[in-house]
Amino acid sequence: MPITVVGSVAYDSVETPAGRYDRKLAGAATYFSLAASFFAPIRVIAVVGEDFGPEQEAVFKARGIDIQGIEHAPGKSFFWEGSYLDNLNEAKTHNTELNVFATFEPKIPAAYADSDFLFLANIDPVLQRRVREAMPDVKLVAGDTMNYWIKDHRPALLEVLKGLDILLINDTEARMISGKASLLQAARAVMDLGPTSLVIKHGEYGATLFHKTAPGGFEQNTFRAPAMLLEEVVDPTGAGDSFAGGFFGYLASQPTITPDTYRRAMFYGSVMGSFACERFGTERLQQLSRKEIDDRFIHFRRLTHLD
Amino acid sequence: MPITVVGSVAYDSVETPAGRYDRKLAGAATYFSLAASFFAPIRVIAVVGEDFGPEQEAVFKARGIDIQGIEHAPGKSFFWEGSYLDNLNEAKTHNTELNVFATFEPKIPAAYADSDFLFLANIDPVLQRRVREAMPDVKLVAGDTMNYWIKDHRPALLEVLKGLDILLINDTEARMISGKASLLQAARAVMDLGPTSLVIKHGEYGATLFHKTAPGGFEQNTFRAPAMLLEEVVDPTGAGDSFAGGFFGYLASQPTITPDTYRRAMFYGSVMGSFACERFGTERLQQLSRKEIDDRFIHFRRLTHLD
Repeated sequence: MPITVVGSVAYDSVETPAGRYDRKLAGAATYFSLAASFFAPIRVIAVVGEDFGPEQEAVFKARGIDIQGIEHAPGKSFFWEGSYLDNLNEAKTHNTELNVFATFEPKIPAAYADSDFLFLANIDPVLQRRVREAMPDVKLVAGDTMNYWIKDHRPALLEVLKGLDILLINDTEARMISGKASLLQAARAVMDLGPTSLVIKHGEYGATLFHKTAPGGFEQNTFRAPAMLLEEVVDPTGAGDSFAGGFFGYLASQPTITPDTYRRAMFYGSVMGSFACERFGTERLQQLSRKEIDDRFIHFRRLTHLD
Repeated sequence: MPITVVGSVAYDSVETPAGRYDRKLAGAATYFSLAASFFAPIRVIAVVGEDFGPEQEAVFKARGIDIQGIEHAPGKSFFWEGSYLDNLNEAKTHNTELNVFATFEPKIPAAYADSDFLFLANIDPVLQRRVREAMPDVKLVAGDTMNYWIKDHRPALLEVLKGLDILLINDTEARMISGKASLLQAARAVMDLGPTSLVIKHGEYGATLFHKTAPGGFEQNTFRAPAMLLEEVVDPTGAGDSFAGGFFGYLASQPTITPDTYRRAMFYGSVMGSFACERFGTERLQQLSRKEIDDRFIHFRRLTHLD
């Protein structure tokens, strides 16, 4: 079933211990779309500047992604510059230029109206909420956020959380939202704010899924997926968005969603997040095959299963 | 099959966010023995002072642990004082008093000579090596160490590593020993120094097992076990030693050791480590039942397995 995603389509300049690059195509909606496109039809809502042309469009089209919801505006695309020199699990931001995103008013193409799934990638919660309200008929809504919105835009973020089925965040964000140090207590407190399911990502240690309402109760439905042990993390940028793409894309690909579907979705999330880290920017996601994805799924099973 | 363990039997004063205690029975060999005693016959080699009497002996005897190798010396037992106020994954040491350990010369009782398994808990590598050499006929030797020995006693530690089948350390220690940031590269480099199997413990995120020589190759035999999501980590002291006790104890309980046995041992390690954290000191391990252990094993399977 089709997924509409709203989020940034942007340019990144990044430095990691493995090297650096300047102004590569990036952004949460880009990573999400590429990862999710291996599982379901994807439709993007975003805004780009005059620096986004046929070469960039081709990256989306090669994966069959619908980009009629990418608006072109005068000026430059969103730009982020960061590094991971001290800590591969946490980016240090050197520069953020909102550019065309500063005045973005998301518009939803008529052709997107029948989307069953909606993903609110990490952008201003005011925009996330506007898109959510413009698509009241979607069946499942997931979203992401970050420390900046948690710290300085809490009221707007709390409104978004009320409308989410699934929230995907990392350990630090879960602790920031809840004020709880224990991950289990943080998970419960975050779900009290709205989402019925919560994915907490642990970087190189995998991710944990919590359900508030699944049969059997909270404890029995917690699930932990591993992360890949990579020879070298070349670039962690976009790993979380790629995780979300694999996770939500797999859910959208299934005829029914059960607790077991969620468990498999966690594995596919970890699989896509791991590929994203193997090369700079979106390079690896652009060159991936479905067979490689399925092989890594099998590897993850062997990595964690007793028999 | 019986396990002989050499290590500290000591007193700890500890402060955690959940509270504090003064001079409770502790030490790596104590935690290891209590945890492993649920799986195999345990024999301890250590030295204690005049502050160790019938009350402390009773803790070992209640679990059927052989303590004829615990030597009594004039003076006080080893004492450690630490806290986990900022970080539950890493202790801050406030005070260490070697006391009777300063002049410890391990002696192996004749009754221990037929031990098939040997565990070298975290003590001076010179002592670890002496015990290893005094028990040349053991079938499987595992050991632990810590940052202090890695940093300031590297040559002695390298000698110990040569004689180990299995080394159990944490992420930081693996990176310190190898000088590699990538966990996979660190694992390979550490195993090049001797151990054919390596367990790297990730605190609240579980642990990963690496085998150098198992059939199928390095990649195919890596295994990741989860950690328990605890409502509250009351006291992380001894969690690593308890992990080692569950892990090595389970191996010693099995008629043959295959790659699958190792995987289950990882689960039992995580199970015992999680129990250790639930109450202060060794309280939880003293009051544990085999049924609780097996129930948690099943919980861990459900936490990580797709179906």
